[in-house]
Amino acid sequence: MSKYFSKKYALLTPYTPGEQPKDTQYIKLNTNESPFAPPPSVVQAVETEIKRAQLYSDPECTALVKKASEIFGVNTKQILPTNGSDEILNFAFMAFCDKDTPVVFPDISYGFYSVFANLHGIPYKTVPLKSDFSIDYRDYMHANATVVIANPNAPTGLCLPVWQIEEIVKSNPNNVVVIDEAYVDFGGESCIPLIHKYDNLLVTQTFSKSRSLAGARLGLGFACESLLADLNTLKYSTNPYNVNRMTAMAGYTALCENAYFMDNCKVICENREYTANELTKLGFEVLPSKTNFLFVKTDEIGGRKLYEELKKKGVLVRNFTSERIKDYNRVTIGTKEEMEIFLQKTKEILKEQRQ
Amino acid sequence: MSKYFSKKYALLTPYTPGEQPKDTQYIKLNTNESPFAPPPSVVQAVETEIKRAQLYSDPECTALVKKASEIFGVNTKQILPTNGSDEILNFAFMAFCDKDTPVVFPDISYGFYSVFANLHGIPYKTVPLKSDFSIDYRDYMHANATVVIANPNAPTGLCLPVWQIEEIVKSNPNNVVVIDEAYVDFGGESCIPLIHKYDNLLVTQTFSKSRSLAGARLGLGFACESLLADLNTLKYSTNPYNVNRMTAMAGYTALCENAYFMDNCKVICENREYTANELTKLGFEVLPSKTNFLFVKTDEIGGRKLYEELKKKGVLVRNFTSERIKDYNRVTIGTKEEMEIFLQKTKEILKEQRQ
Repeated sequence: MSKYFSKKYALLTPYTPGEQPKDTQYIKLNTNESPFAPPPSVVQAVETEIKRAQLYSDPECTALVKKASEIFGVNTKQILPTNGSDEILNFAFMAFCDKDTPVVFPDISYGFYSVFANLHGIPYKTVPLKSDFSIDYRDYMHANATVVIANPNAPTGLCLPVWQIEEIVKSNPNNVVVIDEAYVDFGGESCIPLIHKYDNLLVTQTFSKSRSLAGARLGLGFACESLLADLNTLKYSTNPYNVNRMTAMAGYTALCENAYFMDNCKVICENREYTANELTKLGFEVLPSKTNFLFVKTDEIGGRKLYEELKKKGVLVRNFTSERIKDYNRVTIGTKEEMEIFLQKTKEILKEQRQ
Repeated sequence: MSKYFSKKYALLTPYTPGEQPKDTQYIKLNTNESPFAPPPSVVQAVETEIKRAQLYSDPECTALVKKASEIFGVNTKQILPTNGSDEILNFAFMAFCDKDTPVVFPDISYGFYSVFANLHGIPYKTVPLKSDFSIDYRDYMHANATVVIANPNAPTGLCLPVWQIEEIVKSNPNNVVVIDEAYVDFGGESCIPLIHKYDNLLVTQTFSKSRSLAGARLGLGFACESLLADLNTLKYSTNPYNVNRMTAMAGYTALCENAYFMDNCKVICENREYTANELTKLGFEVLPSKTNFLFVKTDEIGGRKLYEELKKKGVLVRNFTSERIKDYNRVTIGTKEEMEIFLQKTKEILKEQRQ
């Protein structure tokens, strides 16, 4: 760091995004992207928008918000579009935590939560997942802290039922509960309807996974109007035009094509079940996933080693360095063809390993 | 605010962006956008990018940064692309100011500087512009604070020569000086070359004005490698994919079309001089502008009244409520045709006023 950098960031370690290699053509199963491109209607709508990109975007994203309100069954003052869901999560840490209001989240979850806490000088506590990597919802009741839970959780893929989320929300009336539903469209149940009942719940979703727009950067936050107004105060104090014109239009059009994306989710779920079965046959431990990825390990080869061998063979998966999960790999579910190649390469590696 | 909102934001007043009316077709001279659309090559490049938007963008924006390094004469580790220049400015306030390092900027300037300071709890001081609205560079020498100056300044349009900026930078070796060059392409001289000589200078630019991409949201920060690394630490702790795929490609292609945009700037400067002359003939006081807007007033009609009358006649300009400048309006320079209509409507209003 330079001598000018504020001392409060002296110990800050940034988030490390998944590899985005430029050198080779990999089968990319490492960052939970959709294998399906956006539909032609999204492409056409963006083509129109770029032609008038000399004009600022609508800071309120009126058309997008209106469409989202219909799809998600909320009113327009209960939705905030952001530059990816990372931005709404960042706003949530800023708004609802501070040095007197700590935050709690699982020890194994989205790696960005601790980065946000450190960035803003927020004390945080992590709660260990149970030995089967599941979350015990009772660990978050009466937390006396802001609660952040990814549901389904990443990188485990496991999911809590909505009634357990409701118990957490209900038991923390003096704190906000943030439910990060990045992967909810692959088999989870959204708790967005609970925002009508509780004023301390923020639900975040993203267009990066089920809606094939990771590269466009669009997230949505859902909460009661008063929480949403707080988050808007931060948006308008940070970057009023946070969502650009093309992305707002891509998001709007994607919501108009909801059936296309939900059909893709079904295909991804089928590919997931197929891949899980095949890996189980090969002796892998496979966590029961409600996401577009599998979290897997085998005693036959170390997690890092499998990651490296797959990379040599042109398949990228994600391995984490954290002690508790270093033997696992997170494998994004792609097309059937991609999963066949992944399985074939895995078999080859296991065979080589046995020699 | 909700009872959950961190108390540190109790007094925070967000920035108010210029009106983006949806009801009527206005001649929009209120937010300093370019009247010229992006060229066909930018449109085509974005069309290609949206087709692969299911994949995350390159967090390093490699192609854009490489092209920018050629255009601006710096190396690739001296450039940070952001989600509009608001984001790089926000990072600068976070990185180089804190409760022990206050910030200083002119009393009349981009209204967001005080919002950033309040957002992050940074003490700030404003220095009054001189009576002719110019900045006295000596006011910022030995400031013992982070210095933020828009050059040319907004909404005045006035410009400091680079040697005066250098005096400020040189005299503040223990503090960072931020020069916001949003409008530099309309007649100012960039101080980017000074980053090779001083390790305490951050220069920000935007694609929103001269490069016809306000709706795409793209800013660039330029500084020595160590300052840039600090800013990257914040980026990767906030939103690693802060610049989406379409915007990165639009920015790259726009830099490949540099001549197109610089030609547009020449046209805008000609329209500016024409409009300034005509307004002077009508009895307006017109500040000598090096930007794509004019800052004007007349004793014949109040600033707010002129703004309102122009709006009734379908022309939007920007009026500010701040006491010192409430008699002025900021008029964006559009096409020759747009400026003719603005002048015609202004004449009508003055005539009506005299009756």
